[in-house]
Amino acid sequence: MHGISEERVMKETVTGEAAGRETGKRETPTRVSGFSLEEIGRQTGGVILIQGSIYKLRRMSGFAFVLLRTGRHVIQCVYSPEFSRFPVEELVEESCVRLRALVAQEERSRLGWELRLLELQVLSVPAEPMPIVINQKKVNTSIENMLDYRMLTLRNEKQRAIFKIQEGICQGFRAFLQKQNFTEIHSPKLVEAGAEGGANIFSLDYFGRQAYLAQSPQFYKQMMVGVYERVYEVGPVFRAEKHDTSRHLNEYTGVDLEMGYIESFEEIMEMEEEMLQAALTDLQAACARELELLKVVMPQFATQSRETWPVEVPPQQSHLPMGRIPRIRFADAKALVAQYYRRPMGEKEDFEPEEEKLLCQYIRAQYGSAFVFVTHYPETKRPFYAMDNPENPAETMSFDLLFRGLEITTGGQRIHSYREQLQKMERRGMHPEEFADYLLMHRHGMPPHGGLGLGLERFTARLLAFENVRETSLFPRDIHRLTP
Amino acid sequence: MHGISEERVMKETVTGEAAGRETGKRETPTRVSGFSLEEIGRQTGGVILIQGSIYKLRRMSGFAFVLLRTGRHVIQCVYSPEFSRFPVEELVEESCVRLRALVAQEERSRLGWELRLLELQVLSVPAEPMPIVINQKKVNTSIENMLDYRMLTLRNEKQRAIFKIQEGICQGFRAFLQKQNFTEIHSPKLVEAGAEGGANIFSLDYFGRQAYLAQSPQFYKQMMVGVYERVYEVGPVFRAEKHDTSRHLNEYTGVDLEMGYIESFEEIMEMEEEMLQAALTDLQAACARELELLKVVMPQFATQSRETWPVEVPPQQSHLPMGRIPRIRFADAKALVAQYYRRPMGEKEDFEPEEEKLLCQYIRAQYGSAFVFVTHYPETKRPFYAMDNPENPAETMSFDLLFRGLEITTGGQRIHSYREQLQKMERRGMHPEEFADYLLMHRHGMPPHGGLGLGLERFTARLLAFENVRETSLFPRDIHRLTP
Repeated sequence: MHGISEERVMKETVTGEAAGRETGKRETPTRVSGFSLEEIGRQTGGVILIQGSIYKLRRMSGFAFVLLRTGRHVIQCVYSPEFSRFPVEELVEESCVRLRALVAQEERSRLGWELRLLELQVLSVPAEPMPIVINQKKVNTSIENMLDYRMLTLRNEKQRAIFKIQEGICQGFRAFLQKQNFTEIHSPKLVEAGAEGGANIFSLDYFGRQAYLAQSPQFYKQMMVGVYERVYEVGPVFRAEKHDTSRHLNEYTGVDLEMGYIESFEEIMEMEEEMLQAALTDLQAACARELELLKVVMPQFATQSRETWPVEVPPQQSHLPMGRIPRIRFADAKALVAQYYRRPMGEKEDFEPEEEKLLCQYIRAQYGSAFVFVTHYPETKRPFYAMDNPENPAETMSFDLLFRGLEITTGGQRIHSYREQLQKMERRGMHPEEFADYLLMHRHGMPPHGGLGLGLERFTARLLAFENVRETSLFPRDIHRLTP
Repeated sequence: MHGISEERVMKETVTGEAAGRETGKRETPTRVSGFSLEEIGRQTGGVILIQGSIYKLRRMSGFAFVLLRTGRHVIQCVYSPEFSRFPVEELVEESCVRLRALVAQEERSRLGWELRLLELQVLSVPAEPMPIVINQKKVNTSIENMLDYRMLTLRNEKQRAIFKIQEGICQGFRAFLQKQNFTEIHSPKLVEAGAEGGANIFSLDYFGRQAYLAQSPQFYKQMMVGVYERVYEVGPVFRAEKHDTSRHLNEYTGVDLEMGYIESFEEIMEMEEEMLQAALTDLQAACARELELLKVVMPQFATQSRETWPVEVPPQQSHLPMGRIPRIRFADAKALVAQYYRRPMGEKEDFEPEEEKLLCQYIRAQYGSAFVFVTHYPETKRPFYAMDNPENPAETMSFDLLFRGLEITTGGQRIHSYREQLQKMERRGMHPEEFADYLLMHRHGMPPHGGLGLGLERFTARLLAFENVRETSLFPRDIHRLTP
């Protein structure tokens, strides 16, 4: 390992005097940690103390370029025997180091400055060279390999930018929801019964009785509407789906909200529209560099007003209301895709993934929107708590949000009347006594309410134009993968 | 059911004209939703539209007091045939309603105003009267009953204030950590191996192989230190502990952070000190009303300087450094409690709950601090990733934070050297190959790092002076309880 001991004391104590000698300007080096590039740039001519990992070393004749990976940036540094008081051999990729460096003006650098390495303190050296190349522009390998070495490949500049953006989205959602008087809750993930029904649920032994992993915080967020009117949760959601597709994860991060005193499920869609717009605006401020690095094309909302809709919109679309996100009824969307793309409709009560893609393609072309709300899903395809359309009980007051070809949200109005909920359960042959806790809330007074769940990984994937949702999960779980 | 139909249209359409007739001041009633009491107060003399649940009805002779529960407040309203244009019988406790009301000056009201109910729209009525009284000052029942009817008892003003405060704490932590350049992560809860060892782990079948529920995000947050330097997560943590005490939950909300490039584990304690101070400051601004309602005594940090320490501090305490939170070594703390309170020491390598209480009592009395850091826990009591004290390998570079008698945080420096980690695992008879993924990070370069985990429910419980941590979990899970 290049003969470098793992812990090495800085060779010369960094004192005000030593730093002053270097520049003649400053007495004490500024310790840089978590500072932005702009803040470092403002130190030009001065000496700083900075820490990070050696991301890439390029030895030239007589000097070396060193890319330093800090908490958020990759910074160009220069090693030269002219000013560096340590042997170049001590710079090892993926070593963690503390550096004393001069912030030097450099026109050829993109930032207008570079760091000239003066002194080095090695904090740790890797025991072995990397099993996979992570310091190229992108990690050039199969997704399986990428995920097997996830804790290493995430050190790649572009890989980690993905999750900085995901954090930004999440912060944006929260900031918006707090402003809208939503209260954040933490609901249990160990539950006695699944909220979404079906066999797609993980079960486990809980001190001698059967428990399940929550498929969503559905029951709890509804209960909490009776307490705070508006609530949200960002947390793990577990689905034991056996699908092996690029769209499915068995554990994902759900952004769930639920709101009371609505007059129509359209208020929930409006809230989501506003949430998306607010979060995407915040994101551009918080993650400008990461968005640029990943060449992210920000999604457009509808650009055309209703009056200028193209003539080729089928007649049944004429009632399509125009928001920032176009809305279309499920049945109309099915017909539209079949008619416009001349393809057989297939299954009448659900979308095929290809239909979702085509619908989004159509909406994008016609209205300029990357998003589309599909509303009024068939009753048979929605859970027992979904409110039916009073004008047509075969439909529910529900919606999905599709984004660039993929469903990212499911939402709708819920039944708040005890009697109605009982009747619907009985119609479905369910046993209300199995849901006694859940029904207590309806029995003792609930406001009209509804909500939605958004998959954070799916949203991030479509925003960053990744085909596979595994790319936007830190440590994805699928039918084959439980590690790392 | 008082003969009230479940859905009832407002009797008189609320128009600008109708509202104007009432006050002669305003043309359109202000629709109030999620507004603060101050904002409503500013409408004094005007008419508002407001929605909520009838919390409490007190019929007097000729009029009635009506407490309206909105998303955050309980607001006093008055019904009187003089100005209310609906029969009083339509006001049913736990009904959800929309009201048109005059904001009237009223000196006898604590707020200086009250709402005079003009018109009523009933949105829903409960199917049955409450099985438990929730609209008294406190819910007067056993904790078991309180939890069995949790979705109802949380509607109590004081009960829901608990979780508004918990939200405030959480927001405060996040705001502080974001400012300190921590990146928020979402790590998987379905894992292949437990991080904390022992039998206290839930297992389940994961598509034919065994999976576990994460006992902490430990492995993942460490891996992510190699990516972002500083990370945090707020999420569920699962412990299959069979303890049936007032301090244990089988699922709780962990606030976990991990930070790289530390020079000592004391930096982690300093970070926690600052985080607690920042969050408690934010909380007082965000939740003033709730803190007042629950008569919360905000915790003090140390008030005495080192020079004024009382003489009765035992000699071995003389090295106790003075921060905002006093620090004491584990061995010294054990000796101090034994000596000061004249009680047998019992188990030498761990605290008994009673000792934690006595230590806190002592620290509170001597230094005015509600918190105390206990440092340098025995090696045998800490996990395999804990860094040993180079000066005394029987001790670790670790700490717990005790708050008002209860451990709320465990933290410390972790081993970052691959060789050291392997050696420690081998000394403990562990099989490193079972931790291959985890060790990949050490093998390929990690900075010196450490972190901590804080139990959100425990912290909230001690802040609000609840003896039982179940009181500060929305829907607690314990060895006997999996519902609601």
